[in-house]
Amino acid sequence: MFRTHTCGELRITDTNKTIKISGWVQKTRNLGSMTFVDLRDRYGITQVVFNIDTDAQLCEAARALGREFVVQIEGTVNERHSKNPKMATGDIEIIATAFTVLSKSETPPFTIEDDTDGGEEIRMKYRYLDLRRTPVRKGIILRSKMAQEIRHYLSEDNFIEVETPILIKSTPEGARDFIVPSRLNAGYFYALPQSPQVFKQLLMISGFDKYFQIVKCFRDEDFRADRQPEFTQLDCEMSFVERDDVLNKFEGLTKHLFSKFVNFDYKGDFPRLTYAEAMALYGSDKPDIRFGMQFVEITDIAKNQGFKIFDEAEYIAGICAPASAKYSRKQLDALTDFVRKPQVGAKGLIYVKCNEDGTYKSSVDKFFPQEKLALWAEKFAAKPGDLLLVLSGNKTKTQKMLSELRLEMGNRLGLRNKNIYAPLWVVDFPLFEKDEETGALHAMHHPFTSPLKSDMHLLESDPESVNANAYDLIINGVEIGGGSVRIYDTQMQQQMFKHLGFTQEEADAQFGFLMEAFKYGAPPHAGIAFGFDRWAAMFNGTDSIRNVIAFPKNNSGKDIMIDAPSLVDAVQLKDLRLKVDE
Amino acid sequence: MFRTHTCGELRITDTNKTIKISGWVQKTRNLGSMTFVDLRDRYGITQVVFNIDTDAQLCEAARALGREFVVQIEGTVNERHSKNPKMATGDIEIIATAFTVLSKSETPPFTIEDDTDGGEEIRMKYRYLDLRRTPVRKGIILRSKMAQEIRHYLSEDNFIEVETPILIKSTPEGARDFIVPSRLNAGYFYALPQSPQVFKQLLMISGFDKYFQIVKCFRDEDFRADRQPEFTQLDCEMSFVERDDVLNKFEGLTKHLFSKFVNFDYKGDFPRLTYAEAMALYGSDKPDIRFGMQFVEITDIAKNQGFKIFDEAEYIAGICAPASAKYSRKQLDALTDFVRKPQVGAKGLIYVKCNEDGTYKSSVDKFFPQEKLALWAEKFAAKPGDLLLVLSGNKTKTQKMLSELRLEMGNRLGLRNKNIYAPLWVVDFPLFEKDEETGALHAMHHPFTSPLKSDMHLLESDPESVNANAYDLIINGVEIGGGSVRIYDTQMQQQMFKHLGFTQEEADAQFGFLMEAFKYGAPPHAGIAFGFDRWAAMFNGTDSIRNVIAFPKNNSGKDIMIDAPSLVDAVQLKDLRLKVDE
Repeated sequence: MFRTHTCGELRITDTNKTIKISGWVQKTRNLGSMTFVDLRDRYGITQVVFNIDTDAQLCEAARALGREFVVQIEGTVNERHSKNPKMATGDIEIIATAFTVLSKSETPPFTIEDDTDGGEEIRMKYRYLDLRRTPVRKGIILRSKMAQEIRHYLSEDNFIEVETPILIKSTPEGARDFIVPSRLNAGYFYALPQSPQVFKQLLMISGFDKYFQIVKCFRDEDFRADRQPEFTQLDCEMSFVERDDVLNKFEGLTKHLFSKFVNFDYKGDFPRLTYAEAMALYGSDKPDIRFGMQFVEITDIAKNQGFKIFDEAEYIAGICAPASAKYSRKQLDALTDFVRKPQVGAKGLIYVKCNEDGTYKSSVDKFFPQEKLALWAEKFAAKPGDLLLVLSGNKTKTQKMLSELRLEMGNRLGLRNKNIYAPLWVVDFPLFEKDEETGALHAMHHPFTSPLKSDMHLLESDPESVNANAYDLIINGVEIGGGSVRIYDTQMQQQMFKHLGFTQEEADAQFGFLMEAFKYGAPPHAGIAFGFDRWAAMFNGTDSIRNVIAFPKNNSGKDIMIDAPSLVDAVQLKDLRLKVDE
Repeated sequence: MFRTHTCGELRITDTNKTIKISGWVQKTRNLGSMTFVDLRDRYGITQVVFNIDTDAQLCEAARALGREFVVQIEGTVNERHSKNPKMATGDIEIIATAFTVLSKSETPPFTIEDDTDGGEEIRMKYRYLDLRRTPVRKGIILRSKMAQEIRHYLSEDNFIEVETPILIKSTPEGARDFIVPSRLNAGYFYALPQSPQVFKQLLMISGFDKYFQIVKCFRDEDFRADRQPEFTQLDCEMSFVERDDVLNKFEGLTKHLFSKFVNFDYKGDFPRLTYAEAMALYGSDKPDIRFGMQFVEITDIAKNQGFKIFDEAEYIAGICAPASAKYSRKQLDALTDFVRKPQVGAKGLIYVKCNEDGTYKSSVDKFFPQEKLALWAEKFAAKPGDLLLVLSGNKTKTQKMLSELRLEMGNRLGLRNKNIYAPLWVVDFPLFEKDEETGALHAMHHPFTSPLKSDMHLLESDPESVNANAYDLIINGVEIGGGSVRIYDTQMQQQMFKHLGFTQEEADAQFGFLMEAFKYGAPPHAGIAFGFDRWAAMFNGTDSIRNVIAFPKNNSGKDIMIDAPSLVDAVQLKDLRLKVDE
């Protein structure tokens, strides 16, 4: 061992002990007769003192220690004169009697400090140096501890972690697969799993009863900000359960993690909204319910009142922003600009100021006299001083726009506090979504999701109206998990495949083994999968999942540190009987 | 919930409770007025009784329940008349009041019993049914519990589990990589990792100090029996440590797992043998030391005695098989046949029977009179009744042959008891091995392994004589783990690459990022990796790692259940700009 203690553990009770510590030089300070070296490791920072009067040569030598040198220090623990209450080791210092440079360091390309001067690109290239920074290291450690806690919690509850294969078969459903050429079966390919979905269902058919896995999944997507080609899922499945059994079980896990990692004790049950309710109230299937401002529809009282835009609209609705009637012209213009951004896509924004004196000032005063606006205000349950913001048009599109506006107002009013966690379950999603161009049906969740029992009679006659027994866990507007009760019957599964446009042959070729498995006694089962990276990022208080991935790829799917992907040897391609088509 | 209890938990204290259980029909028995159904789930088997006098219709219906039907039973817990002490639930039975068939089952292709009638091939195809069998399920559950226990043990000791990437860069060193074409960077490829080696070293450079990961690794090998293209490793690394710190740490883990999973309390320290000692005593770097029969070299007393075969041999050595002098001609012939098998490759076998009466009977009596054989016996410390088995020839080859013979004798004498665990560390491996054909040097461990400090001065002048600071954990003759102290210095690493035949450009292209990382303060570090599948198989008492992998591939790397690898869509290949060369 190159040390007797870490740089984070010595305390005043260790005074006078002879110790050895090893770590990285965080900084050195020369104060004439003294040289101070702050030595850092994962566990903390310890101050080391070299005194010119005690050992001039050693003190001189210590002055040559540069930042990030790896050094072993021998010395004695001493009580500090001026203690530093901000540091765990702040009561003591080490009076050095000897040191050894274990490794030198060139000047790092950016400073290894909490606030660094390094840009994203350079920090990615030298990720191993970025990982030395406390905030980055903390994110990785938090993630590790979350995984450990989840495993402990579920194992205590008799869940079994089973590793499912990474080299599987390509399926056309869903996102694009990464494929892996087989050398021993040249011309044939494995695929990397987008999720262990079918394997966990097979495990239920095997009788494993309660399964989980923290597992890498892969998606070859056109890269978007904060998507990673490989990501980590907490994947779970249970047998002999109904929807609420799954929801209650994982609500328990979520509360446990809240209290363990973000010191947040959630009282009571998570709210449950149907997809239809979520769309009506928030225009989103992942509403941020840390704040109110639920949608209020006023189509009935605002349409056919002579205002052409409203009169032509299918849907008129708005939100009531509390205590915002004092918004200036400039602020209102900024909101109008916001909704007109192409990403939002509204044509304009109607506002009504509910003045403190009981009068109203709106952008549609010409069409709506005070008594009409008073009716709106009543419907919104607006108080004097509130501001109504109204959009209109096609219902689905307007709901989406209004959702964006609501989130923006939430930001502007400081209602999206990172230290508050507002979870909810969204349930009863549509089973299918229709491709607007082709008219083809796609599974909104995935093809193994069961319809709601109450809707099963419509599956043949009116599939689009059928709701799925599917559910999402939303926290602060972020989709953290999603799952469903599964089909466990060959006939219904085949009906699903038919609706999804599979021929019998395609269904057999892709999922024949699952259909076959259903024939030998499949239990009712249901499950859920959580985006582990996202969950860890949320608890870490960071926006990007990259902050909680040790070696992430950039937005083009490249690891610029190791330079992957890269060209491969011609021989390697030949062995695989592959040619790159220039 | 489809149940109030599992099929494994009802006891006599539950008598008279009204319960619901769900599971698979293990078997049914009709005894005239009664029908018995054994219902099975992961937790156990519960006997259900249908009585024709109580409910004739229900009893009649129950008779139609086939094996592997999934059924929900409602009923009352009743104390059994004839208890079954072999079953945890053997004191009770369920008097059924209702049942629901949740899923029917066709007759399974093999019986779901501990001893099944299904062959390997059919059980692989229907792996989800094979997993229903208790011995198979137990292996998977044992594996899961081992992983959980390892994680707990290491986490308690401040190890951090960090996920390293799966999509990395191909490197020519070692076995063949699986590669993954990149669509967004067409013509470029990721590779799947053979181990997280460089990433864990970078994590040490980052200051993570104590890392572990239970992680999938991949090797595109020509398939051999019991190799899997994807396998699982327990991968570990520590900073500021020397060899013995690593050995002691993981010896602790090993002992913990012994006592937790195989009820084996190992007293004292694991023996440590150098590679040279292991080869001299056992002819193997993974000796099975559950039994003795160490090699005894008799070149000095057996050579130049007029027996041509010995006189031409570089090395003459044997083993002393206890109490085997009574071996018949037939038994001795069988041993001779054994060593002559092409896999062993000896030309013949010399034996000396140490008779109970103090005389000797050997296959070389013509050349070695009694007093000479007595000298041999003395050297072997043979007792009357023992049997000496001697081979000769080239030293290295003969040691290997003798090792095979020793293991065979261990088997024949019943000395390789599965319930005994004999671990040891083998240390000080040669740093390089020489390719006999090309004369090129290969890293025996991997190119990041440090030479022994005492041998470093020879690295430039006589690399072949240099020993590595590397170590293997061997249990019962199986290599369970291996690791090394690492190089953490750019110059020495470059020297290694040079010996391994890398040009400067190749070294930079492949490992430039690691060389670069060494420049910014690399701590001394060392690590180890364990073959988790093998370890779990050993503790499961099974020879094949397939028994502890939920969905293994066969010896051709195929998953015959899902039919992977498979052909992929032409569009998919086009998107990757790839062509299969027919």
